[in-house]
Amino acid sequence: MAAAAAPPPPPSPAPIPETTVPETAPPGHTLFARIRVASILDVPHIHKLIHELAAFERLSDQCAATEASLAATLFRSPNPPPPFTSFTVFILEVSPNPFPPIIPDSNFSPLLKTFHLDLPIEDPEQEIFRPGLENDVVVAGFVLFFPNYSTFLGQPGFYIEDLFVREPYRKNGFGKMLITAVAAQAVKMGYGRVEWVVLDWNANAIQFYERLGAKILQDWSVRRLTGDALEAFAHFSV
Amino acid sequence: MAAAAAPPPPPSPAPIPETTVPETAPPGHTLFARIRVASILDVPHIHKLIHELAAFERLSDQCAATEASLAATLFRSPNPPPPFTSFTVFILEVSPNPFPPIIPDSNFSPLLKTFHLDLPIEDPEQEIFRPGLENDVVVAGFVLFFPNYSTFLGQPGFYIEDLFVREPYRKNGFGKMLITAVAAQAVKMGYGRVEWVVLDWNANAIQFYERLGAKILQDWSVRRLTGDALEAFAHFSV
Repeated sequence: MAAAAAPPPPPSPAPIPETTVPETAPPGHTLFARIRVASILDVPHIHKLIHELAAFERLSDQCAATEASLAATLFRSPNPPPPFTSFTVFILEVSPNPFPPIIPDSNFSPLLKTFHLDLPIEDPEQEIFRPGLENDVVVAGFVLFFPNYSTFLGQPGFYIEDLFVREPYRKNGFGKMLITAVAAQAVKMGYGRVEWVVLDWNANAIQFYERLGAKILQDWSVRRLTGDALEAFAHFSV
Repeated sequence: MAAAAAPPPPPSPAPIPETTVPETAPPGHTLFARIRVASILDVPHIHKLIHELAAFERLSDQCAATEASLAATLFRSPNPPPPFTSFTVFILEVSPNPFPPIIPDSNFSPLLKTFHLDLPIEDPEQEIFRPGLENDVVVAGFVLFFPNYSTFLGQPGFYIEDLFVREPYRKNGFGKMLITAVAAQAVKMGYGRVEWVVLDWNANAIQFYERLGAKILQDWSVRRLTGDALEAFAHFSV
């Protein structure tokens, strides 16, 4: 991870003849990005992001998560499990200014990357996605994942339940930064797989995953026992 | 679970006229079944079961699990996580004799059920599936599962990675006993879903899952990043 600890310097602007460019030319659009492990303080933003994801997937009617249920299940007090041993959320933040230097952490040191964009990003919701007191920082996305297990490999992997980049930030490589952070952590831990499911109509996501080298498991389909069908098993009687 | 704590008594044999039945008539085929949480001592049997499952799924070439890898990842010493907080294995055992009375356990008390079969079960491998010193007990199957998380529900569920009943014991309800044990534990813990994947050609399994009331997630397909494509992410560089 050391390679990402220090962001590369912004590129030198190409020399431009002074006579043809007015002084008001856009100064370039550098955006600094950081991925860190979420804490219970992020619950209001995680909640908003989940509901935006549900709307994007046209599944808002299925989205019952509340701030209280997320806090109780993702950040169990008084002893939440260490990151990566259970449900884990990475938060993606962006800022027009560099993030402060990384303080190494035995669990996970935040990841930094500098993006150079052709156009500035207009984010109408930036004021409601401010994390804490860093006033130029905006939450731009998240990924929620947890360990799964392959009996065939005889080893754990990670399953990505949700990966979401807010609409104004899409198509810039932030999604790849998030999935890469999970895959890099899997490799660091010696895990054998990273898996997720994709909606068959989400062509952008499918194209994105193919570019990453992810295989489609053609012969498998997902089954789910939920609601009344699950409650019917409340008492063990076969 | 209290309903399962005491197995029902074996049925009284129907009165049969003494004159028409020789003394060698089969005495009926009662089989006692028990589901308990696996320990590291079960690793040799879990390993064999996984390889039998891989052969059944025609995926033996993908099965690299060893006893050592299973012991290291499923039963991490010195402090394995409590059952249900991480990867959990239920072992299904059968015996012609009743199991000893249940000793209540704060994590999980074994589940008992009595099966009445039309025909006796011939198990050519029973000697290699004996767990410990109980000489009439045979391991007949297993289920491996772990917590997953639904952001839409804002709560955990269980994901079943493997469910397997050894060939001689199939079609008697043992698979249903295993999946019911997982579903009942999910309900007990207030979890919202139990999910798994099924091979599209496995018509028996698909029929079985439909009878349980499990829904098919039609619009989703599974993606996997593994092997070289995963290793390519070893160093974080987006």
